[in-house]
Amino acid sequence: METVDAELYVEVQQFYAAQMPLLEERRFEEFLETFTEDCVLEHVPFGWRFDGREDLLKEMSARRGDAEAPRVAETSARRAREENIPYYNGLVYRYWCDRLRVVPAGDGALRTRYQAIVSMTDAEGKVSFEPTTVVEDELVRREGRLLTRSRTITHDSARWADKIHNPS
Amino acid sequence: METVDAELYVEVQQFYAAQMPLLEERRFEEFLETFTEDCVLEHVPFGWRFDGREDLLKEMSARRGDAEAPRVAETSARRAREENIPYYNGLVYRYWCDRLRVVPAGDGALRTRYQAIVSMTDAEGKVSFEPTTVVEDELVRREGRLLTRSRTITHDSARWADKIHNPS
Amino acid sequence: METVDAELYVEVQQFYAAQMPLLEERRFEEFLETFTEDCVLEHVPFGWRFDGREDLLKEMSARRGDAEAPRVAETSARRAREENIPYYNGLVYRYWCDRLRVVPAGDGALRTRYQAIVSMTDAEGKVSFEPTTVVEDELVRREGRLLTRSRTITHDSARWADKIHNPS
Repeated sequence: METVDAELYVEVQQFYAAQMPLLEERRFEEFLETFTEDCVLEHVPFGWRFDGREDLLKEMSARRGDAEAPRVAETSARRAREENIPYYNGLVYRYWCDRLRVVPAGDGALRTRYQAIVSMTDAEGKVSFEPTTVVEDELVRREGRLLTRSRTITHDSARWADKIHNPS
Repeated sequence: METVDAELYVEVQQFYAAQMPLLEERRFEEFLETFTEDCVLEHVPFGWRFDGREDLLKEMSARRGDAEAPRVAETSARRAREENIPYYNGLVYRYWCDRLRVVPAGDGALRTRYQAIVSMTDAEGKVSFEPTTVVEDELVRREGRLLTRSRTITHDSARWADKIHNPS
Repeated sequence: METVDAELYVEVQQFYAAQMPLLEERRFEEFLETFTEDCVLEHVPFGWRFDGREDLLKEMSARRGDAEAPRVAETSARRAREENIPYYNGLVYRYWCDRLRVVPAGDGALRTRYQAIVSMTDAEGKVSFEPTTVVEDELVRREGRLLTRSRTITHDSARWADKIHNPS
């Protein structure tokens, strides 16, 4: 693998360090401003795909819930979507990443790849983890700032969407 | 978020990579030499606050225990303090961090922010996790070296101090 | 601790970001090309030591299993070796690292140190963790590329090899 220079690598690290806490804090509009208008986010395997900021905002607003709300009954990602209920109620969820790779892709665009795991901490302090994933992003530069143009999340368990989320 | 240059970002990463293992290895005096004399460390919510190296040394010496000692009975952070007993006996605890942000704050001082989770590995190899946190530090430079002047640890569970620590 | 410059630190980060996913993906030959021919890998405490790429390839081929295979019955690292059976069948395992320290060691060699934990995600999405470790590597440069000459993995639980792996 070719090595990118330190300034670019560190810029990308700081981009994610600013981007992902916005999602954790449910600041969806600000989070989506770190994506391009025509962004695409896709879950593999399963095919859930969101096209553009509007589509993502609708999904996140419906699903991400409220850390202060009572916990939802046991459900899975698939059921939460079918029943159109939130998913992370009563939980603080945080993304943990590792193995960031950054590959320049021409035109100032970058391809990145990293592994990620989501922790969920509930009101009592119980910690649980979602199945691990590998994430591949395409980043572009607009007016000097990095933005995510596409994100593909490949789950390490093919049945991730049926797993009981945060089991008691 | 503005981006700090790579040299400074990497220096801060290496500062933490040297600082935190000292705490994990119970080398408290050396750990505290990475803090200013007048340091402040505070847990939120709850208000436990330690002022200065002496205060921190007293707390850590009483609470951090010994990895080689037998495990303590199930207890919580609050009970361990009330009963003045150690907390991490029989455990190797390690800090895992992510999403480091570094913001220059004038006078060579820095404000940093990162999320952290503590793993506990017991003699049998069981791994458990403490509730997730967000940590905000103020770092200053003294004779060329970075030191922590203040640390605020915001716990993601309001009841973190009552949680049974490393449940069996 | 002395501070290495950002370019070298980032190069080492990217070296590991390329190396470890090869092991996770069971691409053993490619993984071993990131080690020197005369590499040494040792587990402490326990004394399992592998000398050279051939020895490591034999061990990994016999033990690492297949993510698509059915899960093995409950076993430990020691039993899997005694019975010469794979260990990670039915599992996606991923390495998570933190606290990377890089110290130049003369002749272009580097000594690195980091903590590591392995997550295991099974087909149903269950996540478990192996006991934490501290890893110390010696890296050398050959024809411009970094290679691992030695790796010592110190386990935080003395009984790690007897622990039931991925308990149900």
